[in-house]
Amino acid sequence: MIVHLLKPEFDELIEAKDWVALKDILNDVPAVDVAELLEELDAEIAIVIFRLLKKQKAADVFTYLSSSTGLELMNMFTAQQLSEVMSNLEPDERVALMEELPGHLTQRVINSMKTDDRKLVQQLLGYPDESVGRLMTPRYVKVKKHWTIQKAMDHIRKFGHSVETVNVIYVVDENEQLIDDLRLNQLILADPEATIDTLMDESFEALSAFDDQEDAVKMLSKYDRVAMPVVDSDGILVGIVTVDDVIDVAEEETTEDMQLMAGMDVLDDYYSQTSIFHMVKKRIGWLAFLFVGQLFTATAMGAYESVIANAVFLSLFIPMIISTGGNSGTQAATLIIRALSTDDISMSEWFRVLGRELLSGLMLGLIMAIVGFLVIISWGFVTTGGLSEELVLSALVVGLSLIGVVLWGNLSGSMLPFALSKMGLDPAVTSAPFVSTLSDVTGIVIYFSIAIALLEGVVL
Amino acid sequence: MIVHLLKPEFDELIEAKDWVALKDILNDVPAVDVAELLEELDAEIAIVIFRLLKKQKAADVFTYLSSSTGLELMNMFTAQQLSEVMSNLEPDERVALMEELPGHLTQRVINSMKTDDRKLVQQLLGYPDESVGRLMTPRYVKVKKHWTIQKAMDHIRKFGHSVETVNVIYVVDENEQLIDDLRLNQLILADPEATIDTLMDESFEALSAFDDQEDAVKMLSKYDRVAMPVVDSDGILVGIVTVDDVIDVAEEETTEDMQLMAGMDVLDDYYSQTSIFHMVKKRIGWLAFLFVGQLFTATAMGAYESVIANAVFLSLFIPMIISTGGNSGTQAATLIIRALSTDDISMSEWFRVLGRELLSGLMLGLIMAIVGFLVIISWGFVTTGGLSEELVLSALVVGLSLIGVVLWGNLSGSMLPFALSKMGLDPAVTSAPFVSTLSDVTGIVIYFSIAIALLEGVVL
Repeated sequence: MIVHLLKPEFDELIEAKDWVALKDILNDVPAVDVAELLEELDAEIAIVIFRLLKKQKAADVFTYLSSSTGLELMNMFTAQQLSEVMSNLEPDERVALMEELPGHLTQRVINSMKTDDRKLVQQLLGYPDESVGRLMTPRYVKVKKHWTIQKAMDHIRKFGHSVETVNVIYVVDENEQLIDDLRLNQLILADPEATIDTLMDESFEALSAFDDQEDAVKMLSKYDRVAMPVVDSDGILVGIVTVDDVIDVAEEETTEDMQLMAGMDVLDDYYSQTSIFHMVKKRIGWLAFLFVGQLFTATAMGAYESVIANAVFLSLFIPMIISTGGNSGTQAATLIIRALSTDDISMSEWFRVLGRELLSGLMLGLIMAIVGFLVIISWGFVTTGGLSEELVLSALVVGLSLIGVVLWGNLSGSMLPFALSKMGLDPAVTSAPFVSTLSDVTGIVIYFSIAIALLEGVVL
Repeated sequence: MIVHLLKPEFDELIEAKDWVALKDILNDVPAVDVAELLEELDAEIAIVIFRLLKKQKAADVFTYLSSSTGLELMNMFTAQQLSEVMSNLEPDERVALMEELPGHLTQRVINSMKTDDRKLVQQLLGYPDESVGRLMTPRYVKVKKHWTIQKAMDHIRKFGHSVETVNVIYVVDENEQLIDDLRLNQLILADPEATIDTLMDESFEALSAFDDQEDAVKMLSKYDRVAMPVVDSDGILVGIVTVDDVIDVAEEETTEDMQLMAGMDVLDDYYSQTSIFHMVKKRIGWLAFLFVGQLFTATAMGAYESVIANAVFLSLFIPMIISTGGNSGTQAATLIIRALSTDDISMSEWFRVLGRELLSGLMLGLIMAIVGFLVIISWGFVTTGGLSEELVLSALVVGLSLIGVVLWGNLSGSMLPFALSKMGLDPAVTSAPFVSTLSDVTGIVIYFSIAIALLEGVVL
């Protein structure tokens, strides 16, 4: 390699501290050779040489370094250098590097960033979309356990102006691992000469940077905290999430749930910020899909075409019947989706829910049967001025059908969220339109089956 | 009045400080007379007399006092007495009293209560259900502007252990009016000998105790705060709301919205905590109401009975048509309800929304028309093995109807939330079942009108 030929010259220039000449040469030499040169130098000299490189060249050189040398250098980087090197790396190289990056380096990169850069860096650091890692901020106060309270208070005084909360102070060990959290009040009330570890109980709750943001919402709500620490897989403190950020997340999640439940894809932005074209794109898929699904209703109706031809009046009540089934299903589905998403019930409770919804479906069905019978009779009486046999029979068919239709809507609406969740889908995909479509088909079959059973030989 | 006769005797007993004898007599004399007596005494004596009364008697006497004497006495009450008197008053008397109660008295009552009692007192104080007044806690730190930083820090040290947050310190004037909020950091960084007013900028955001809890959610989110002060109508600091309480409120509000949007009444408790009987009660009302609403579909269908009799195949597609309208309406309604409740759009923007939804409804309708036509043709071809005139005509009627049905669903779904809100109802009452029922009737009319126009003289 060319570097071996140049090595004596390099050594001479280094000896002479002629950085200008070195800079010229290094930026002309291929990256792989510069890397080889750096491997042979002491870390203290290597870092000086590395700093002479142009940004893109530095990143290229970095990819050729052995991981031990690379990490050794990174330890000596300024945060600025770290972020420059990182952002000039190719995505795959970056991921590879991040996988072996020790937590305290991760922490250093994140901590030294300005807010705007930080978003980028958190993305660069490989935290997935919607993960706690993307939400956390480094604006917290950390102290060491051997510090005196006085020193900790001085530290808070110095850095407290730039953090999100001083209510909670985090204690880390020499490896930056989180070992406790303290309330500021504990420090204020303590003897200034005592050390931090006299206040510690070593019990704390923390989130992982790879946790879903929804978990952060639940944890903060569960433990009634305004902020929670975030640690990486080694338990190293990498940030905190604050409740004000979490509120925004919770709001977004809910909006997404609601859009799914309305039978459409989730919008990428707020309604007011969404173009009409984008809106149509997010809605048309489910509309068309459900329309195709409704073919089953046409097929079912087709099977009863001759019944309809013989007793056209039966067709009048089809929309009433199927929509009532859909309504009951929508109610049940919404109750279950919401209860699942707020952790009010868990996936394992599906059997208990089945029992409950069987019972409530039966009760609702029976009441609706009576309501339905009376409503149809009254309606017929008002509109025709009398009670025909046709009318009474229709009312009877409608009433009996409602029991089955409401019960079925209730059962499918409540069980579908569990089934979809089991299949790895969001339970909220059990939209009102979806459940309605499902119960429409069944409603038609139930209605005509009862009609045939009751009216065969009478009017059919 | 009897009290005039007894007055000399009273004066004598008071002079002699014979409290035991006085107590016996006072509790036998009618409340109105005791009140009259108290009116004539100096406040310092009156309060002593008042304390001799039994609890219920004290409350009764209180209602007979002129408001000036009443307030004078209340100023001297202990918090315990205040709450005793308050809780023994009749609800209407309590509201009347509260309306004239100065803020610092309100504050005193709330501050001195234990957590369990406080809930009750906040209710007693007349803050409406779901108001900020019910949510606030008195666990904050307040300081005076003429205090030195040192005195303020000593105060924080003394009371900081029992408050929700020390991040923000509230400054009140001699009337307990909120005049500023300070970050703890400002105090920590300041010269201990300086006074609080050197730090003040007199700019702060506050909630009113009568604001809706939803407003608290929005304000905390908007200003990215962990806590916000609550003031009464005179600007007197009566508490703070913290973000962790607000998260729970936001979650509840969302659950309520979702239940309304599913076409049911709001449950009083979590799904898992709700009895089957209660559940049925909350669901049956809307189910029955919507069923009755569906009578319009039966009536509409009835109007086309002869059309159906002549062309039974037309009836096969009714469920497809009306459900697609309902689906489009459900999508639109959900988008608008959520956008309104997150302040993404405001009530005044209804006309802009109308324009948008007209356009997107037309686009969706046109696409669905093509989809619908092709789907029906393909379905017919697959099930019957050929293309009859009936089938092509049906596909045409279905396709054309879909334009109108989808457009109508979109318009009614998006405008109904505005209309309901204008009528003082929750926009979320625009439930999926409600919108579906509305568009079912229209769907039937659109479908048969197009069928008659197209098929008259052909198959009809």
